[in-house]
Amino acid sequence: MSNGQPELDAVKWWGWGLESKAYRLDDKPQFWPYLRETLKLEILVEPPRATIDEIRLPDSRLDRRTLARLKKIVGDSNVSTDKYDRLTHSVGKSYLDLLSMRRGKIRNPPDIVVYPGSEHDVVRLLSLAQANRISVIPFGGGSSVVGGVEPLRRKGLRSVMTMDLRRMNKVLDVDAYSLTASAEVGISGPQLEDALNGKGFTLGHFPQSFQFSVLGGWIASRSAGQYSTQYGKIEDMVESLTLVSPSGSVATKPVPASASGPELKQLLIGSEGTLGVITKAKLRIRRLPETKRFEGLMFKTFRDGINAIRQTMQSDLVPTMMRLSDPDETRISLVLSSQPKGFLQSVTRRLGLWILGQLGYLSPEGCLMILGAEGTRASVEAQRDVAVRACKRNGAFGIGSGVGKTWLNERFELPYLRDVLLSHCILVDTLETATTWDKLETLHFAIKKSIENAISEMGVSGLAFAHVSHAYRDGASIYFTFIAPQVNGREVEQWLRIKKAATDSIMRNGGTLSHHHGIGKDHAPWIKDELGPNGVTLLKAMKKQLDPKGIMNPGKLLETTRRFPEKVVESE
Amino acid sequence: MSNGQPELDAVKWWGWGLESKAYRLDDKPQFWPYLRETLKLEILVEPPRATIDEIRLPDSRLDRRTLARLKKIVGDSNVSTDKYDRLTHSVGKSYLDLLSMRRGKIRNPPDIVVYPGSEHDVVRLLSLAQANRISVIPFGGGSSVVGGVEPLRRKGLRSVMTMDLRRMNKVLDVDAYSLTASAEVGISGPQLEDALNGKGFTLGHFPQSFQFSVLGGWIASRSAGQYSTQYGKIEDMVESLTLVSPSGSVATKPVPASASGPELKQLLIGSEGTLGVITKAKLRIRRLPETKRFEGLMFKTFRDGINAIRQTMQSDLVPTMMRLSDPDETRISLVLSSQPKGFLQSVTRRLGLWILGQLGYLSPEGCLMILGAEGTRASVEAQRDVAVRACKRNGAFGIGSGVGKTWLNERFELPYLRDVLLSHCILVDTLETATTWDKLETLHFAIKKSIENAISEMGVSGLAFAHVSHAYRDGASIYFTFIAPQVNGREVEQWLRIKKAATDSIMRNGGTLSHHHGIGKDHAPWIKDELGPNGVTLLKAMKKQLDPKGIMNPGKLLETTRRFPEKVVESE
Repeated sequence: MSNGQPELDAVKWWGWGLESKAYRLDDKPQFWPYLRETLKLEILVEPPRATIDEIRLPDSRLDRRTLARLKKIVGDSNVSTDKYDRLTHSVGKSYLDLLSMRRGKIRNPPDIVVYPGSEHDVVRLLSLAQANRISVIPFGGGSSVVGGVEPLRRKGLRSVMTMDLRRMNKVLDVDAYSLTASAEVGISGPQLEDALNGKGFTLGHFPQSFQFSVLGGWIASRSAGQYSTQYGKIEDMVESLTLVSPSGSVATKPVPASASGPELKQLLIGSEGTLGVITKAKLRIRRLPETKRFEGLMFKTFRDGINAIRQTMQSDLVPTMMRLSDPDETRISLVLSSQPKGFLQSVTRRLGLWILGQLGYLSPEGCLMILGAEGTRASVEAQRDVAVRACKRNGAFGIGSGVGKTWLNERFELPYLRDVLLSHCILVDTLETATTWDKLETLHFAIKKSIENAISEMGVSGLAFAHVSHAYRDGASIYFTFIAPQVNGREVEQWLRIKKAATDSIMRNGGTLSHHHGIGKDHAPWIKDELGPNGVTLLKAMKKQLDPKGIMNPGKLLETTRRFPEKVVESE
Repeated sequence: MSNGQPELDAVKWWGWGLESKAYRLDDKPQFWPYLRETLKLEILVEPPRATIDEIRLPDSRLDRRTLARLKKIVGDSNVSTDKYDRLTHSVGKSYLDLLSMRRGKIRNPPDIVVYPGSEHDVVRLLSLAQANRISVIPFGGGSSVVGGVEPLRRKGLRSVMTMDLRRMNKVLDVDAYSLTASAEVGISGPQLEDALNGKGFTLGHFPQSFQFSVLGGWIASRSAGQYSTQYGKIEDMVESLTLVSPSGSVATKPVPASASGPELKQLLIGSEGTLGVITKAKLRIRRLPETKRFEGLMFKTFRDGINAIRQTMQSDLVPTMMRLSDPDETRISLVLSSQPKGFLQSVTRRLGLWILGQLGYLSPEGCLMILGAEGTRASVEAQRDVAVRACKRNGAFGIGSGVGKTWLNERFELPYLRDVLLSHCILVDTLETATTWDKLETLHFAIKKSIENAISEMGVSGLAFAHVSHAYRDGASIYFTFIAPQVNGREVEQWLRIKKAATDSIMRNGGTLSHHHGIGKDHAPWIKDELGPNGVTLLKAMKKQLDPKGIMNPGKLLETTRRFPEKVVESE
């Protein structure tokens, strides 16, 4: 990168996270045998990954004059047509994204990457882009898993500019009295939390992408953090925000609540870069929790666990997190738990498992829950009191805080495992939805079936497993992971078939198209089913107003013309 | 009324609430003396109110052919051009509304009142209205205090239809598992609560207009109930809704949360009838609280009380209600408390007041707080534990649950007092805003000053007093009441001057234009200051999409062309 952010140099261009970090499997001896059996893997091949040198990008279409003007706005060193910069801004981190990176086949690199340093830069860049028919892709952590940052081309536009906002990473103000903090949107999770923690505060927003994603991306995609059950989704944390659009800026008023017409900020949150660039936000923060307790509980059935979450959420007091794995995810969690180090620990573990087995919690139906409570000592006790009571009422068996601590330590690690699996020709992806309690079990069953059927229809054995998390009074989200051996030579088709089957099933069974990943390119074909034709037309009218020439992030969110599965080009 | 709702016949056309009910002042002997002294009233005159017979309405402009078609859609008995129906749908319950009713000068009666019985009726009515250039005013309880239901005329439209939705008052579904209930929007507060209470549930939404306002009005105006601190505003309670617009229907998806683009329902909530007619909603309900405790606390200063609320709201657990009167409102509350009945009660009261006085809580700075907690026994205890501790830390003195019970009993009564005051030529009105904690005291002071100055500039003595309620982690609302002797012959001008002064002051000091009354006609001149010019343009683009011919509730919310103070026509 040419933007003077050396700490980002260590980021993998072809996968998740840091180059220096790999998911450890050597201390998890049960993992490969389990996978080999479940997926009926015959061999584990590791095909070569493309190197940067092997990758050929199409030439940048940006003319010299425009390039010079861009440099004038943001400075020479903040405009780049370097191969590395264009490459690392060409896709996000979806399965298909990683596939194309590994293959070195990049379809849509941006013609130019620009690093604005201020809101004023953004205003000038958008004005230039609009005048010169350049489309603009706002880019933050680049961690979209729904194709949200791919520089798709639109007819009539001459070139594509990716606007990397990570230079705009300042905390502007922390108000310890009103408990608010203002920040520029390019600030990453750790940068923001470090700044707040230093003053005794936290935002409390921890999506799995936390280490790399940025505030603007969270807002643009309606992100949810792992503690959303207590702290809310990002839309609950944003007190106000500023969006710069090609038609001008919209700054919402920093007040706790209002009845001054429709809530403007809720039209901008979730706009996924299609209306403009969110430049800054004022956030509701909280004091750092005095204490926390994360612990495990086992349920005899998934339904028991769901009932425990529902009953807790419908009480007067909710805990920070309730995360219930279904039976298959529970088994994988056990398989992925690392080997105890000492003899005594090993014996304790085996004894624990033996007891759980005797009590009936290790049947094929057994389910693991991680319950988390944060706050003052009194509040943690009160949260646990309500939640543990609801769990016990539904037959739960407490297995202590060890598993909770492990979860806390490893909660940002799992995306690294995806790279290991991809290196072994194993398809792995996740998807998520949410629905009301009355539909939750049916929806879970339907999605699982549809994914596993789509996998087996192509002649391989796969597995879909899920957890219920992000719970509400009226429902909860379900988060699925699915794995299968890649179908050699038909990898893209294989994924498209699964994705279509799963999403159709979500839409048929009352789920929402996305609970926190967003729509991007991948979910856009269903947006009309989700919002209704008049809902889409309404949002398009807004888009037309703020972005009359359609330069903002083309092909995302509302653009429903693409067929799905699209014509499959395996060379992609 | 011709719509077969005999229970509504007893409603006052010229004031608030039921004809059969009057605000009792005979047991509050301190009230008139206090008012006489504070407002320097010389005489209390009671001018005659216009009778219905004296009122002349302009003829209905609706042609016979359209009338026949309307009757065909909803049935003969659900279409009315009766004087009484037109009169009672000609205004809401704002100060100017009541003034014109008392004077019998009705500027904008609807040409026709229609009572649809179903969503299908609404669809057909809007289609007919659009084809015939008839504007449509959705009408529920008619309790708007910001001119939200006045049938203003727009150039190019031929006549005005008020659509009274109170026949659409069915509860459609109660889901005890997901804790949701669906209802048609014409259902009133008591109808909805009775239906829910019968099954052990409550919505928990109690605006002061509760007894007469309806679900659709709450949603259209972003209403807040007295318990919003714990239960949220109406926008938090709506899981999904259906809006019928002239361009078709928009039905949002009934899910607990989503990341499928901007939150569509938040564009429709607060739309004040300008986008279409909200026909039904699915609501998040809760179990009836096991117990409740409402109690009083005295603070030595307003700032102490504000700090107590802020500290409580910024903790892990919030109570149902914290309502803090400023010093002047505190004095009025004491003045408005009824005379104890027995000798012993009287002595106890006097002793209590003496003790409070000795302790320094009855100084001119003393402030009363009503603290309310609802829920399970444990939860009420926990809520009180946090809140009372914060109060004590700020020097509060608990005065027991008597004052809390009184507040609960009388919480819907105060609007009746307004009619008594109006009958004595006393101007009385309320307004509200919200801001972040850091600006709250300044804002309170600025509004009070601006109102009292505006009052005295016209040569009379008035008083503005307020309470802080509807608290949030980052701020709270302030609710002002102001009273003054009417300036004879200049009553409209007087109110316009005060309103302008107060609203300008809100906008200058970081308040929101409205926290829960809405925008309507009265606040529309400031909407551009509130949302910014691009915010207004954005909402207008949406309006254009859903209501291309501009038939929906003209002159409200986004229409900023009216001057304020408008040319004053005292004959209004």
